[in-house]
Amino acid sequence: MTEPGQVFSALKATCLDDWDAFIRHDFVRQLGAGDLPEACFRHYLGQDYIFLIHFARAYALACFKSDELDDMRAAAATLDALINAEMALHVKYCAGWGLSEAEMAALPEADANLAYTRFVLDAGMAGDLLDLLVALAPCVMGYAEIGTWLAADSARDHDQATRYRDWIALYAGAEYQEVAKGALEQLDRVAARRLGAEPTASPRWAKLAKTFRTATRLEIGFWDMGLAPPG
Amino acid sequence: MTEPGQVFSALKATCLDDWDAFIRHDFVRQLGAGDLPEACFRHYLGQDYIFLIHFARAYALACFKSDELDDMRAAAATLDALINAEMALHVKYCAGWGLSEAEMAALPEADANLAYTRFVLDAGMAGDLLDLLVALAPCVMGYAEIGTWLAADSARDHDQATRYRDWIALYAGAEYQEVAKGALEQLDRVAARRLGAEPTASPRWAKLAKTFRTATRLEIGFWDMGLAPPG
Amino acid sequence: MTEPGQVFSALKATCLDDWDAFIRHDFVRQLGAGDLPEACFRHYLGQDYIFLIHFARAYALACFKSDELDDMRAAAATLDALINAEMALHVKYCAGWGLSEAEMAALPEADANLAYTRFVLDAGMAGDLLDLLVALAPCVMGYAEIGTWLAADSARDHDQATRYRDWIALYAGAEYQEVAKGALEQLDRVAARRLGAEPTASPRWAKLAKTFRTATRLEIGFWDMGLAPPG
Amino acid sequence: MTEPGQVFSALKATCLDDWDAFIRHDFVRQLGAGDLPEACFRHYLGQDYIFLIHFARAYALACFKSDELDDMRAAAATLDALINAEMALHVKYCAGWGLSEAEMAALPEADANLAYTRFVLDAGMAGDLLDLLVALAPCVMGYAEIGTWLAADSARDHDQATRYRDWIALYAGAEYQEVAKGALEQLDRVAARRLGAEPTASPRWAKLAKTFRTATRLEIGFWDMGLAPPG
Repeated sequence: MTEPGQVFSALKATCLDDWDAFIRHDFVRQLGAGDLPEACFRHYLGQDYIFLIHFARAYALACFKSDELDDMRAAAATLDALINAEMALHVKYCAGWGLSEAEMAALPEADANLAYTRFVLDAGMAGDLLDLLVALAPCVMGYAEIGTWLAADSARDHDQATRYRDWIALYAGAEYQEVAKGALEQLDRVAARRLGAEPTASPRWAKLAKTFRTATRLEIGFWDMGLAPPG
Repeated sequence: MTEPGQVFSALKATCLDDWDAFIRHDFVRQLGAGDLPEACFRHYLGQDYIFLIHFARAYALACFKSDELDDMRAAAATLDALINAEMALHVKYCAGWGLSEAEMAALPEADANLAYTRFVLDAGMAGDLLDLLVALAPCVMGYAEIGTWLAADSARDHDQATRYRDWIALYAGAEYQEVAKGALEQLDRVAARRLGAEPTASPRWAKLAKTFRTATRLEIGFWDMGLAPPG
Repeated sequence: MTEPGQVFSALKATCLDDWDAFIRHDFVRQLGAGDLPEACFRHYLGQDYIFLIHFARAYALACFKSDELDDMRAAAATLDALINAEMALHVKYCAGWGLSEAEMAALPEADANLAYTRFVLDAGMAGDLLDLLVALAPCVMGYAEIGTWLAADSARDHDQATRYRDWIALYAGAEYQEVAKGALEQLDRVAARRLGAEPTASPRWAKLAKTFRTATRLEIGFWDMGLAPPG
Repeated sequence: MTEPGQVFSALKATCLDDWDAFIRHDFVRQLGAGDLPEACFRHYLGQDYIFLIHFARAYALACFKSDELDDMRAAAATLDALINAEMALHVKYCAGWGLSEAEMAALPEADANLAYTRFVLDAGMAGDLLDLLVALAPCVMGYAEIGTWLAADSARDHDQATRYRDWIALYAGAEYQEVAKGALEQLDRVAARRLGAEPTASPRWAKLAKTFRTATRLEIGFWDMGLAPPG
């Protein structure tokens, strides 16, 4: 495989139905159309705050598990960006939605959140760096696809003044797209180092595809959770 | 604290409503009364097969994390019993319900299963042996309480010829009760070694109570899953 | 590769000089000839007690990291044997050499011991099950080779009444040889599952060979330590 | 305990002889006097390159194991600084000593390096964040003490044109001293959260003191290694 993103494409191809159910989820459609109930969005934002913490822990684990400096550097930079920069942006954005950091930190963690984040962390602990990166891929790459899709869709079909414009702009924006591209390339690189030139021919492929699919299903569960705010 | 089981009792006392919702769950009541739909029980058994594998991994982790030989020995013996003995009994029991091991191994893992098992494993990885044992406690001790309650209840109120008699007898039986007592004592011992004579006065207590409560809530989620078999 | 033990043979072939320096170490030669100073042997026995504890932890980790039941079962059985049986034998044997368990537990851990055991554990944590099994292989297989060699050598050249006869008999014996054979087969099996039919053609091979060689060098360091008792 | 650095002071007080043997080691004295053979310094620099990689991994692990955002942030910032900034400085400094990064990356890792780094990582994996921070403390704080001592000593007694002036200035400098102060405060904070107001009264204290002492002894082993360059 030599085309950039080929490992991700090959993984996605093993579970296209699940992938579409994640990317085109009702939560996403409603968010793009601007008619997602605000209670749902707030519920999502609060849980996403908790999610980001464990997602950052997964990048810390990726750094711990790297045996090449380039992978350590990539993981350390992502981790620092997440926990020392993005987190502050997220907190500020949430404040605009009436959610204080103290409130979010006190929220009970939803089961869908526990399932997704702890699955990713355990996939990394039980396996190697590649197992971990594959478990992380649906989130990183999925949000890039969703951002791009919604931005294009919004431009075409909807009033730009949607309530969720800033959220869409974040993931459609050049900075996030660059992060996703970096993750795509790292997945190719680590797969080449650990599986060789034909990842899909490796005896590990079926297990990696299962991990990718489970993480994708857990993304769907996360959107489902978003549509069902408590109370 | 010197009375056996005091740490467990103190943890339970912090979330009695959740604990009762777990122990007296409809799944448990119906199982005890013998009117639990068999599709639910089979769904539960299949997921429990997967659960046991990750539960065994948690005991392997407990052994890895022990810094005293008695804790290593206890964890290694439990692990060996689970994976080299109980597992075979479970498989045999499931065969009686028409579930082959190959079928169970091929089942997609339910989200409730992922959430519970991976939460326990991550609690152990992120924390120390005590964090792990506290996360394991609701399962080990809860099944002992459920077994005892249902056995007494069955004796009093129901036809002994219930379909689920063997399941109840397993957890009400002397062997399982002894395992639970050992876990109770280990929890006291490890808490004393890491928190001192007054565990509830430790600054860690609130976090430990949160872990115990989350694991209890995830047990409730596991029963909920049992009542909702697929298709 | 289809001949049993081919992965181990291929790893050994990458560092034959180090391997011979480990197997034919002066400590081993003197032990076989019966002229190893008893102070050296006692120093070795005491450190080996500490070694066994961390070696057992490595098998616990192997069980945690397994994604196939056969590997979990193998690791759990080895762990239980080590910690609940071998350990007691070792303690009894050491008592015959005037070393009580309390004394051994109170020994400061030698740097050579720290280096070897923690390297193996970290190789397993950072990598996958295969990285861990490769790091464990020199010890498991080396002692089998040493036992066989010394037993044959003793039969040929030396007075059978050597002081170290029981130690040699343990590792030359059928039971230990069977353990080593199981480890040999597991290494083939896990390598096939993770690297495919030609492990030496995998891009991971160089790193695995480095891990094997480092562990072999650390075995040499352990014998060096044995020859240099404190005081 | 309320005075800053009290936990570190209390740990140091449990092993003052070892601490002095580390801080006042011949390697350090010769370095300060400017008469350390350059072959020793180069050997040290090359191994320190490898050390930094695993030290960075330990901070990644600290981030993974944190359950408070302030600890995650501190660990992530240190990790990013180490791997994405300090490392480049170290490489540049080593180039001035005729050591290329490629050469250093190809060096066999000394046993003293393996022992120290892997001990720290395993202490963190087996225990909790506090166990890890205690294992890291001798390095972080020791280099700050050494830098301060040598800078004062150099000012008083030696020609300022010592070959090792830049190395001393690095660790005596405000930036590094600030890093050490941050680590000192984090140790107090995490000890308070996990052990309460009187850390030395905790049942964990003896084990923590043992970890601190072992890490200090392994620092001594690292200097010993520096004085014994290969060939």
